[in-house]
Amino acid sequence: MSNKINIKEKFLKFSEHWSPKVIAELNDYQFKLAKIKGEFIWHKHDETDEVFIIIEGKMIIEFRDKKVELMEGDMYVVPKGVDHRPYSKNECKIMLVEPKGVVNTGNSISELTQDNDVWI
Amino acid sequence: MSNKINIKEKFLKFSEHWSPKVIAELNDYQFKLAKIKGEFIWHKHDETDEVFIIIEGKMIIEFRDKKVELMEGDMYVVPKGVDHRPYSKNECKIMLVEPKGVVNTGNSISELTQDNDVWI
Repeated sequence: MSNKINIKEKFLKFSEHWSPKVIAELNDYQFKLAKIKGEFIWHKHDETDEVFIIIEGKMIIEFRDKKVELMEGDMYVVPKGVDHRPYSKNECKIMLVEPKGVVNTGNSISELTQDNDVWI
Repeated sequence: MSNKINIKEKFLKFSEHWSPKVIAELNDYQFKLAKIKGEFIWHKHDETDEVFIIIEGKMIIEFRDKKVELMEGDMYVVPKGVDHRPYSKNECKIMLVEPKGVVNTGNSISELTQDNDVWI
């Protein structure tokens, strides 16, 4: 049987940036928390859409043709195959929803690429 | 191209209880908002897990063997095939995540059954 998950308590369990942690699984989809700060790399996920939900702070998702500013309580669906670059001046806490197995840097493997199935 | 979605603004667009409204689609999954108050019916979803995220207020999910109280910022994965009954004394605002096409009353079609693909 599954258990209650408190999103803010889960954020107390890690501090590193750009390193999504899994908190729940829905069929073959995962809910992940991440703390982000500074600039990420351009990347895309060819096989899936990706949902961003802003839990605390604000962030920008840069696309090739626009920038979207997201605040607490906003969500955004990045369509599959679309290049994007997340950015946050100050630390921002976000929840990601995507299929199990999605790599954080998508098609752009780099030193920012993290293990994609770390639970907290 | 998709647009920014503000969860609290979306809640201003409807008032009825127990009538989930779709706000976003992630591949073949949907994010739905619902206002709930009072007692729902016992039901289950044989084909899928279902995620509850509490946006404002508090609610109880009753299972055959336990009750789980959920507050703002909590989430819960109801496993597929498990009987459950949501309940909220006062109005509670929740977000549901589940595959497109899931009916709110699951296997228990009744006067509470709602159209399952209404967008706001």
